[in-house]
Amino acid sequence: MTKKQPNLREVSVGVVGLGLMGSSIVAALLIAGHQVKAIAAIPEDVEGADLRIEKQLRQCNEAGLVPYSPDVYAEQLTISVDYNELRNCAVVIECVLEKIEIKSSVYNKITAIVGAETVIASNTSAIPISELQTYVDKPARFLGIHWAEPATMTRFLEITCGKLTDPQYAQYIFRLAHRWGKEPTFLKMDIRGFITNRLMYAVYREIFYLIENGRATKEDLDKSFRYDAGSWMTLMGIFRRMDYMGLKDFALIINRLFPELSNSETVPPLMQEMVSRNARGVHNGKGLYPYSNGEAKEWDDAFADFNLKIHKLAAGYSAEKVREQTS
Amino acid sequence: MTKKQPNLREVSVGVVGLGLMGSSIVAALLIAGHQVKAIAAIPEDVEGADLRIEKQLRQCNEAGLVPYSPDVYAEQLTISVDYNELRNCAVVIECVLEKIEIKSSVYNKITAIVGAETVIASNTSAIPISELQTYVDKPARFLGIHWAEPATMTRFLEITCGKLTDPQYAQYIFRLAHRWGKEPTFLKMDIRGFITNRLMYAVYREIFYLIENGRATKEDLDKSFRYDAGSWMTLMGIFRRMDYMGLKDFALIINRLFPELSNSETVPPLMQEMVSRNARGVHNGKGLYPYSNGEAKEWDDAFADFNLKIHKLAAGYSAEKVREQTS
Repeated sequence: MTKKQPNLREVSVGVVGLGLMGSSIVAALLIAGHQVKAIAAIPEDVEGADLRIEKQLRQCNEAGLVPYSPDVYAEQLTISVDYNELRNCAVVIECVLEKIEIKSSVYNKITAIVGAETVIASNTSAIPISELQTYVDKPARFLGIHWAEPATMTRFLEITCGKLTDPQYAQYIFRLAHRWGKEPTFLKMDIRGFITNRLMYAVYREIFYLIENGRATKEDLDKSFRYDAGSWMTLMGIFRRMDYMGLKDFALIINRLFPELSNSETVPPLMQEMVSRNARGVHNGKGLYPYSNGEAKEWDDAFADFNLKIHKLAAGYSAEKVREQTS
Repeated sequence: MTKKQPNLREVSVGVVGLGLMGSSIVAALLIAGHQVKAIAAIPEDVEGADLRIEKQLRQCNEAGLVPYSPDVYAEQLTISVDYNELRNCAVVIECVLEKIEIKSSVYNKITAIVGAETVIASNTSAIPISELQTYVDKPARFLGIHWAEPATMTRFLEITCGKLTDPQYAQYIFRLAHRWGKEPTFLKMDIRGFITNRLMYAVYREIFYLIENGRATKEDLDKSFRYDAGSWMTLMGIFRRMDYMGLKDFALIINRLFPELSNSETVPPLMQEMVSRNARGVHNGKGLYPYSNGEAKEWDDAFADFNLKIHKLAAGYSAEKVREQTS
């Protein structure tokens, strides 16, 4: 990601939807070296889109991730409300609101312009790709490209096929994603909740169960993830960690523990209470924890700062790197 | 942990069992400033215990966590096979093998020597505290103090009460643990699997289910935890992350997703296969991933290195710190 690959200049990528996430994706694609056609799905999004994108580029420059200042990317970027700009794009990424009627209308506008081989992708994290692609002309070239925020700094990228997706398009994006500096994951089948989300909901089910039964406090449960799971997560992931621990007692503990885990299928009372209180966490000061004024901004800043540091830290420990060190 | 607190000098702490974990705990307690009575549960453990402890102390010194070289701690430390050394200890921590008959024999030897108010603790991660304490004379002063490796660098510490534990002893250890530089969690009730373990087994149940159903590869599942969950885990934990995300769609997604999560109560076939192959991961080259000779050592080194860096990184982001920054 830190190095421009000149031939990506010849690959135009479109992004439709220029909110926070869309702007962040535009910046990531510019840094990768693409020509980017940034289309505002709603006219108001043109306002400020240039500033949002510039801010992302500047942050990357200041953080030392890219050697160029934002103005270097100006000639690679077109911001517009006109879908005709997408005409020569090899890939178009949709990141508009998570509403099927809005998305399907956007797909119609895209497919009316682009060629039959243009890959069309959604950044959705809520709607199954198999469902979305039924609204797309030539659905074999439709897939999910799910980014994590900020798209310029995170290595995560989830590529998901729907039932009708031709895997060759996904393979093309998978290869391309490596040139974006990502460590993409590839979901052969559309699963509800995608990978991380789905695994995290397994955690949520159990963690609310522990809270409800008075086994531990929120603070303690958070600490155990921050300081214990956090001490190996970024280095190893799950299976590598099992190998590292020696695989010894897992089967034994599974036999004892699986039958005791929560199998709840309903919203935990604590979460239900949050919903009825219209709690929005840091964003409106009503959350699982108390928040004072301005704390949302502090957590934003802390997350941006942490994300950059963990990004740099993770870079030193790919499985390949660990192997190279002594080979 | 980086600063010696002189009055901890007057508090003697005993450690019984001087394997890798025990030696690491001894080093952590020395660094905290305690007088430490290190008792080898088996005579062979006396051999090399001083070197293991010295290595831990040297690593902390080299990493800049403590300003003193290992020899500074010599006069605080007694290594012996003689349980009489425990006589004046305020706390004795057992970290011998996870076998009840061994542990109960150790408890008998400890309680024969120490005073009635001496806190006796186990580092067990496998046996319920409520069960262990039935083997301890005056079980109200018995509890779990579960350390994460390396004890000198990790902030994690799990304090667990059993059914018979008087909470005042746990509170005493909880306060003390802060002076050890820990972020201790406090389990009011003994739960099978402790906190992190238990939450991770909820993840294991789902992740093997995804593998078995061909939804994603091991590599992809690991990536999603390393680069996605890993990008916020150490900063936020689970509940804080929910607040940060705005608590908006969780209830909605729970309703859709909980009913689809695995409720399996049995050992996954892939894990069963590992057991029957006597697979020990990096330790014998048979694991979920392939390993070449010497890779166990490489992962050890990488983990030690990573652990130090994530320890330093985490230190900058306690919830209190984030709040202080603008207050």
